[in-house]
Amino acid sequence: MDSKKYSTHLTMNEVKINDNFWNSIIERVRKEVIPYQYNALQDKIDGAEKSYCIENFIKAGKIAEAIKNGKNVPVYPADKWVYDDNNCDENAFHGWVFQDSDVYKWLEAVGYSLKSQPDEKLKAQADKFIDIICKAQLDNGYLDTLYIINNRDEVFTNLKDFHELYCFGHLAESAIAYYQGTGEKKLLEATYRFADLICDTFNEKGIHGYPGHEIAELALVKLYNLSGNKKYLDTASFFIEERGKKPYYYDIVLGKETVNDNYHYNQAHIQPKDQTEAVGHAVRGVYLYSAMADLVKINNDDELYNACAKIWDNIVNKKMYITGGIGATVDGEAFSFNYDLPNDLAYSETCASIGLIFFARRMSEISNDKIYSEVIERALYNCVLSSMAEDGKSFFYVNPLEVLPEASRKDSRKRHIKPIRQKWFSCACCPPNLARLISSLSEYIFNENDNTIFINQFIGSQVKTKKCDIYIESSFIEDGKIDITVSNVKESFSLKVRIPEYVKNYTVKSPAYTTVQDGYINAEIDKECEINICFEIKPRLVKCSNRVRANVGKAAICRGPIVYALEEADNGKDLQMLTINQNAQLIYNDDGSITAQGYREEPDDTLYYDYNVSRKEEMKLTFIPYYKWGNRGENEMNVYIRLDK
Amino acid sequence: MDSKKYSTHLTMNEVKINDNFWNSIIERVRKEVIPYQYNALQDKIDGAEKSYCIENFIKAGKIAEAIKNGKNVPVYPADKWVYDDNNCDENAFHGWVFQDSDVYKWLEAVGYSLKSQPDEKLKAQADKFIDIICKAQLDNGYLDTLYIINNRDEVFTNLKDFHELYCFGHLAESAIAYYQGTGEKKLLEATYRFADLICDTFNEKGIHGYPGHEIAELALVKLYNLSGNKKYLDTASFFIEERGKKPYYYDIVLGKETVNDNYHYNQAHIQPKDQTEAVGHAVRGVYLYSAMADLVKINNDDELYNACAKIWDNIVNKKMYITGGIGATVDGEAFSFNYDLPNDLAYSETCASIGLIFFARRMSEISNDKIYSEVIERALYNCVLSSMAEDGKSFFYVNPLEVLPEASRKDSRKRHIKPIRQKWFSCACCPPNLARLISSLSEYIFNENDNTIFINQFIGSQVKTKKCDIYIESSFIEDGKIDITVSNVKESFSLKVRIPEYVKNYTVKSPAYTTVQDGYINAEIDKECEINICFEIKPRLVKCSNRVRANVGKAAICRGPIVYALEEADNGKDLQMLTINQNAQLIYNDDGSITAQGYREEPDDTLYYDYNVSRKEEMKLTFIPYYKWGNRGENEMNVYIRLDK
Repeated sequence: MDSKKYSTHLTMNEVKINDNFWNSIIERVRKEVIPYQYNALQDKIDGAEKSYCIENFIKAGKIAEAIKNGKNVPVYPADKWVYDDNNCDENAFHGWVFQDSDVYKWLEAVGYSLKSQPDEKLKAQADKFIDIICKAQLDNGYLDTLYIINNRDEVFTNLKDFHELYCFGHLAESAIAYYQGTGEKKLLEATYRFADLICDTFNEKGIHGYPGHEIAELALVKLYNLSGNKKYLDTASFFIEERGKKPYYYDIVLGKETVNDNYHYNQAHIQPKDQTEAVGHAVRGVYLYSAMADLVKINNDDELYNACAKIWDNIVNKKMYITGGIGATVDGEAFSFNYDLPNDLAYSETCASIGLIFFARRMSEISNDKIYSEVIERALYNCVLSSMAEDGKSFFYVNPLEVLPEASRKDSRKRHIKPIRQKWFSCACCPPNLARLISSLSEYIFNENDNTIFINQFIGSQVKTKKCDIYIESSFIEDGKIDITVSNVKESFSLKVRIPEYVKNYTVKSPAYTTVQDGYINAEIDKECEINICFEIKPRLVKCSNRVRANVGKAAICRGPIVYALEEADNGKDLQMLTINQNAQLIYNDDGSITAQGYREEPDDTLYYDYNVSRKEEMKLTFIPYYKWGNRGENEMNVYIRLDK
Repeated sequence: MDSKKYSTHLTMNEVKINDNFWNSIIERVRKEVIPYQYNALQDKIDGAEKSYCIENFIKAGKIAEAIKNGKNVPVYPADKWVYDDNNCDENAFHGWVFQDSDVYKWLEAVGYSLKSQPDEKLKAQADKFIDIICKAQLDNGYLDTLYIINNRDEVFTNLKDFHELYCFGHLAESAIAYYQGTGEKKLLEATYRFADLICDTFNEKGIHGYPGHEIAELALVKLYNLSGNKKYLDTASFFIEERGKKPYYYDIVLGKETVNDNYHYNQAHIQPKDQTEAVGHAVRGVYLYSAMADLVKINNDDELYNACAKIWDNIVNKKMYITGGIGATVDGEAFSFNYDLPNDLAYSETCASIGLIFFARRMSEISNDKIYSEVIERALYNCVLSSMAEDGKSFFYVNPLEVLPEASRKDSRKRHIKPIRQKWFSCACCPPNLARLISSLSEYIFNENDNTIFINQFIGSQVKTKKCDIYIESSFIEDGKIDITVSNVKESFSLKVRIPEYVKNYTVKSPAYTTVQDGYINAEIDKECEINICFEIKPRLVKCSNRVRANVGKAAICRGPIVYALEEADNGKDLQMLTINQNAQLIYNDDGSITAQGYREEPDDTLYYDYNVSRKEEMKLTFIPYYKWGNRGENEMNVYIRLDK
């Protein structure tokens, strides 16, 4: 770790995307996902599970008003994770304890979207929501509808299970994005008031608690970066420092003593600086690790960096699916133990992969090692992209690698595995999280430091920096080609272009002095030039470590960053009967599919029989990109295929 | 189905076992399991979970006495599945709702054991328990401690969830076994009184309910067979007839209407005569199917036979593990869908395999088809035998085919998979069920009808029938040899000896006219003779249908009826890295193990990598009988091994 080399990602202020592959996806988010969610948040979608999100803010606004006017307001229990008409009064808070965060994530996506594509109607919709949100804020700055509606006296009393600080984190992220996208400060000012209350509440002399669901930490760092107000940084550091200290804050609140390490679910079993393994709820984990990486960079903190590096290593070498999915078990939506990566029971939540991308970008800024961008690419083009239907109208929360629709219907162990994308979820964290990531995708392409610009993702785009302008024309996903035009060069610098790990051969045409360093093509730029790169992107068989029990004897097909899958729609039922030879020729087709000669075993009608060689027929296997699966109705899907004997 | 050919199994009255393989196991049950359970039922075992079983009977006896004396007795809620000091009064009933059945199963085992091996001390212990049990019976014959202790006014009000009729069934089975083993009638008389109450309660003019957990049906048939009292048969038929009728009795009680088929868990979704698939709680299922088979035979009922045959076919061709285990999912301890037989998540409850044996013997008596005895053998020598430790002091409730101790500790989905046998369970159905089966094993060897004696299991034994005496000397498990001496021939008959499905070659030395018919060696006996059979019992590779996703590309090793397994103790960790070639020579060793040359892949340190052939080393693989696994401490175990490429 060398603080002098720290880089910073270039932001939407500088970068505009214009890319064959991504334009339509970004447009889908803008034209389908954001409008759909606008209605969903207001419960205006027939047949979708109710959100209650805006309804809660309206209720809370009335309570806040009544309090200002000195009126008595009712009290309801704030004692459950989820509230509905069956378990609470109709005037009480409804939905999950973290329901507020859905509108914040939507506003964040809107902020990014308006930055790249102004839209008066959308802005008016967002402003209307912001007005509703701000009316709910109490005079002391407090802003969480569960406690405002149900019981003002109990705020910050159950940090472990309920989500005030989590909602605050999303509020802050949305306020910053909306301010940066539109210049509007109303939500940001409300955020500062809530942040000030939080800073005044949690500190050495105050409550020594910390969020049960992390995200406030990284949000406070963002507020510090924007405002320069150090108290926000101090509170972020305080949360990280207090987390996992013994006696456990959560034990103190509960009046009990935990003997063994506990609170793994919340990553609060030991202090973050001492953590070496990714454990517990995966989304919470990656949000925490992201904040830790933020603090590493700001404070040049070696100890915390070592923890981040070990956790990273643990995730990507022992706990990550080939799709970039993380969190292998439904129980606690959590990381499982090392190498436990079942395909058919995977949880692999969309939000967790998004959080992994957050963590990765921060790590890449610290070390400039390309491994982080490799993982961003893996997660982005597979697990994350898979979560949205081709029409932008339905979503996966869980991203399995093997699906048998019959099992999802009949086997309770696989009830979380949906064979087709769902319209909306009562716990709808993933679709808005996806929307905010895709809408801010331009922030994942370039990193920069004093003397270098890094091109980490090959997405057609243009950027203006103080060193130069760069224009990338990319057909990377189609044919591996990237044309980089550097103009308006104001100082000499190194341009580093990541060589993807899976690329064995490539050509570079560069007028500048060009070398290869640490897995990057390094061009020394001192004047305008055009660099043409062509990576050889061939379909390939990929094996998984034999420490992973589910995948021994099997392989996956990949091409570039894209993981492929077999679907019943192309290959018939009983995908487990298909095999492929290690030497099979893999043919990439114009429609993006890959075909290969393989085999289908004849079904065995006898359950147990003395060994004989399975009879099999040659057949043409068709593989489609994993992110496209499930767009043709319910059917079987397998990422891994058995290697033929 | 030809009623004239129905056969009947020969009982302990006629058959005595004396067998190299089984003697020690039967002795282990007599010397270890039965005495251990005697103490467990009285909560006299340190460190074991409490049973409360005898304690409940003592409490109930005091209540019954108080009622007789016209005293007021307390009322406690009878509204839970399990009662302990945390959720009920110390004077109330404790344990599971079916706690009474544990002592009944123990008494049944004792009855069988005393039949074959009189034991004054053991009989005194049993008589003491019987006195305690009988004191608890109410004047009207009612005998279930949950309701006697907690609330006499609520008897028979929750047939679906609570277990009065289930406990009655085990009471009847124990009373019959104890009477037949000792001549003592006290428990049997108490049973008749309870049975009379049940017959008076459940009939056309009474309650149209039926047991939520089946077994009363088959027990009532046994009472009918013993007593000749037809009302017991009528009530058994009534229960089978009413089950699954719409509107559902359980709906009527609950005051709701189920629209779709429901109550699969209880096999009460449709009437038994219309059932074609094994569904729901596996133990309940096989107890029901056993009773159905009983009625087929007594009533010569074609319709019910067709249902039994279809259910049987479904179980053994689509829902049975290679070990004879059934019930693939922990959720509801239930049958999963067709071909869903995961190795590492298996439930495969010991009791379910025992119940499958009950069902199989009844089916074998109806059709004399050897397939039923094949399954008895499979279940007996593998799943059932595996459930008891070599020292008889600990037991498996669940019998997985793949175990990784780390997963059992860390993965909630595998919490039911215990890497070593447990001392006792609060829900202790399996150990006493095992004890009663092993103690009555002599009843599974021979079937007989007018002109035939069938030898279905190759267990050293002697039998006296009205046709002749037969003496079997068997070293079948060791070397496939069975010597059958027939003497004292009083009439001519056919002696049929099952040819196991896995036997390809054998020799028969017989002075009688001998043919092969329907998979049996058939000898026409008209005078005393000795028949020497030698089955070739070679280790073999066995494949599982490729419809079972978990087993594609793998095979199991078997020898005779015994399924083998790899254990970490012999083969090191990471058993998934081992492979075997289809042509590997399998060597049977004197200690019962099988060795073969195989391979161990080198561990892959990279999680994902472009295809290359895995590096592997030759190694000697050691397989032990599945039933012996887990006797050397916690370690990995796999039944299936990957076939080498």
